[in-house]
Amino acid sequence: MSERENAVIVGVGPGLGWHLVEACAGAGMRVALAARRRERLEALLAASSFGDLLAAGCDVADAEAVEALFAEAESEQGPPDLVVFNASARALGGILELDPEQVEQAWKVGALGGLHVAQAALRRMAGRGKGTLIFTGATAGLRGSKGFGGFAMVKFSLRALAQSAAREFGPQGVHVVHVNIDGQIASARTEGRDPKEVLDPAAIAETYLMLHRQHPTAWTQELDLRPSVEKF
Amino acid sequence: MSERENAVIVGVGPGLGWHLVEACAGAGMRVALAARRRERLEALLAASSFGDLLAAGCDVADAEAVEALFAEAESEQGPPDLVVFNASARALGGILELDPEQVEQAWKVGALGGLHVAQAALRRMAGRGKGTLIFTGATAGLRGSKGFGGFAMVKFSLRALAQSAAREFGPQGVHVVHVNIDGQIASARTEGRDPKEVLDPAAIAETYLMLHRQHPTAWTQELDLRPSVEKF
Amino acid sequence: MSERENAVIVGVGPGLGWHLVEACAGAGMRVALAARRRERLEALLAASSFGDLLAAGCDVADAEAVEALFAEAESEQGPPDLVVFNASARALGGILELDPEQVEQAWKVGALGGLHVAQAALRRMAGRGKGTLIFTGATAGLRGSKGFGGFAMVKFSLRALAQSAAREFGPQGVHVVHVNIDGQIASARTEGRDPKEVLDPAAIAETYLMLHRQHPTAWTQELDLRPSVEKF
Amino acid sequence: MSERENAVIVGVGPGLGWHLVEACAGAGMRVALAARRRERLEALLAASSFGDLLAAGCDVADAEAVEALFAEAESEQGPPDLVVFNASARALGGILELDPEQVEQAWKVGALGGLHVAQAALRRMAGRGKGTLIFTGATAGLRGSKGFGGFAMVKFSLRALAQSAAREFGPQGVHVVHVNIDGQIASARTEGRDPKEVLDPAAIAETYLMLHRQHPTAWTQELDLRPSVEKF
Repeated sequence: MSERENAVIVGVGPGLGWHLVEACAGAGMRVALAARRRERLEALLAASSFGDLLAAGCDVADAEAVEALFAEAESEQGPPDLVVFNASARALGGILELDPEQVEQAWKVGALGGLHVAQAALRRMAGRGKGTLIFTGATAGLRGSKGFGGFAMVKFSLRALAQSAAREFGPQGVHVVHVNIDGQIASARTEGRDPKEVLDPAAIAETYLMLHRQHPTAWTQELDLRPSVEKF
Repeated sequence: MSERENAVIVGVGPGLGWHLVEACAGAGMRVALAARRRERLEALLAASSFGDLLAAGCDVADAEAVEALFAEAESEQGPPDLVVFNASARALGGILELDPEQVEQAWKVGALGGLHVAQAALRRMAGRGKGTLIFTGATAGLRGSKGFGGFAMVKFSLRALAQSAAREFGPQGVHVVHVNIDGQIASARTEGRDPKEVLDPAAIAETYLMLHRQHPTAWTQELDLRPSVEKF
Repeated sequence: MSERENAVIVGVGPGLGWHLVEACAGAGMRVALAARRRERLEALLAASSFGDLLAAGCDVADAEAVEALFAEAESEQGPPDLVVFNASARALGGILELDPEQVEQAWKVGALGGLHVAQAALRRMAGRGKGTLIFTGATAGLRGSKGFGGFAMVKFSLRALAQSAAREFGPQGVHVVHVNIDGQIASARTEGRDPKEVLDPAAIAETYLMLHRQHPTAWTQELDLRPSVEKF
Repeated sequence: MSERENAVIVGVGPGLGWHLVEACAGAGMRVALAARRRERLEALLAASSFGDLLAAGCDVADAEAVEALFAEAESEQGPPDLVVFNASARALGGILELDPEQVEQAWKVGALGGLHVAQAALRRMAGRGKGTLIFTGATAGLRGSKGFGGFAMVKFSLRALAQSAAREFGPQGVHVVHVNIDGQIASARTEGRDPKEVLDPAAIAETYLMLHRQHPTAWTQELDLRPSVEKF
């Protein structure tokens, strides 16, 4: 466990999550990855050329499960150098259509889950005085809009966490970033759309790695990523 | 129940909440007011010169309790013209000191409670094509900071709700406002401080009433209120 | 010059400027008003029921002319209690269509003119430890957009001035406000449009007066005004 | 002039400007660079290991001089792939201390100069449907503050330009970025300070290059760069 870096990617599906895994592994890192249901990762793992991935099931809304994930990753791979919180759950519809319980559940995954991961990551990074913690945000984290009230309640909250953690832990040597993904990420669901209109997940992953590599006197706390043709 | 307006003030303590009650009653409105524990309102009610206040206990984190409050207010006083969401619960401390369950509880009061109140209010206002819904926000709703991560997770979320509701219901004739209270409100706890440094709750209430009176072609969605001497 | 307040409205045309004059005069203030060409004010003055208005021609891009205006107003009416900077000049078109000289001219009126007015107003207010200075801003002061680059370069700059002046002079007792007018103000040019879609200038003026009346422990630095039906 | 890329760096001194030149040249680009006075570049050029740099004197406040610079660079090196606007002029002090003429001069360099460069760059990039235009911004471009009103009037204006250009030219294939440099860049003037407190200009330049390399479906429009220990 000498000089290789360790990454923990939380919230892995076939989209951005998996591309982050591949980018980190491709850069020589040991990678732990988690999805709510581990079995969803099987097909991805089976098709992967990277051998030593640590895949786990983890409900990010459960603080103990998150801590167990980080403890296992640390024990197997070493303390985390890069942690990405990529979990999300939607609650869409007009204000009167929203089911408050669904909004609460989405918040427990997408915002409280972020706090669980932040705590597990920062406990391990603060002592070492280094590490990078990246939160995958969305435009709904910066501006509320019709039909996105529930999702915005989650994503604003996550951005609040990222900003607060950055201000507290930057001076302790930990780089905390909020990435505003402004647009749809290419996936099976976006097939048929003009590829210029959807974010390439491998390209997003490259920017995440670059953020991790930034020199500590020139750190980014927040940036946006969007297709060139996207209106904003 | 003819031409008098009706106000519902949710989250009433001896500070801003009670001054909102007095300002509305003083302006001739019928006022329903709610605190988590009704008994906390007794002393205020006993000392009040306004006779026909409808006081209720209501846990805003409980969707059914909120709907019951609005149903009672409507039955007793008529449909709401002005609703203020003023409830809040704090969760302070550094990221690693935060108890996630306490953050969750604070969010259920201060953000999910806002959604409950928004739904009960907007259901009644949208049909009539009029009404004002004001959310009491804080600086922590606009910017995360060290030691305020938990509170920011709540207040950002509330602001997301306000923005989304405004964009959806403005065109339907309902005025939704987020007020950023940037500073401490005068209360028993601020005794001894220079009065210039703390917000006068009666002055805040005046601005809330003014917002309710704005002409529908010149509505404010968001404003800040702070003492002249406050740094920002 | 006893207890009546004094207002100076800079940038008066038949729209918002004139309604501000009427609102201030109607509230009992002595009012000085300025347009680039004094003759443009004649018809308005002739039709006005207010007798003691001080009307002047003043090119706000000219620092000396602005100082002369304030000196005359002070000499005739007393030191200013409320000053509104309402001047503006547009420079519209795509980036490649913009004539840089026209952008410069627009900036000298709409932003540098604001600095001239701020200096003349604040010199007189800071010493007395009171007064209100309101800048009429626009959505283009908060967000750049296609076709509005030149205008945004002016309006962003004005907002920068308002924020800086507020932070410097708030603690000295002077209330500095930036009002973001988000939409078109009703005028001869908007005839034929649904009145719900255009801002009523008298309603805007009412909010300006309310801002002037705010208690110093609960001051607004920035607010938006838009028609209920406006998208944002 | 086949496959090498061409960069134009405007506003070059020994700090960030020169490190951008070196980073671009080091990445294999042909580089044109401009300072207000060409002679200021002599010592840098003499000490440089890169041979084919095109150095020019150019007052960015002069539209014709800017166009001449770009015409010469195009003729000598080919059309620009990466253009950085890095010029700036300060106007510091409290609002009442500011000399409006100095603020105007600072704006003509730091904002109108940006428009001149944007026009020269975008005219050449839009037709080719590719290119990157980066503006060096500052915290004063996002928030006004006491003592920085003049500088903020310039930097807000530049950010307005960046946002407007991005929204207009992104869909045409040109990547426009605003970088908020939040802190002091290491230079002769910062000697003696803890190196952790000042931005390493070579590290900033690396991020600029990364921005230029971003995939067109995942472009950043705005990011911040600050030392890990900086308060914000």
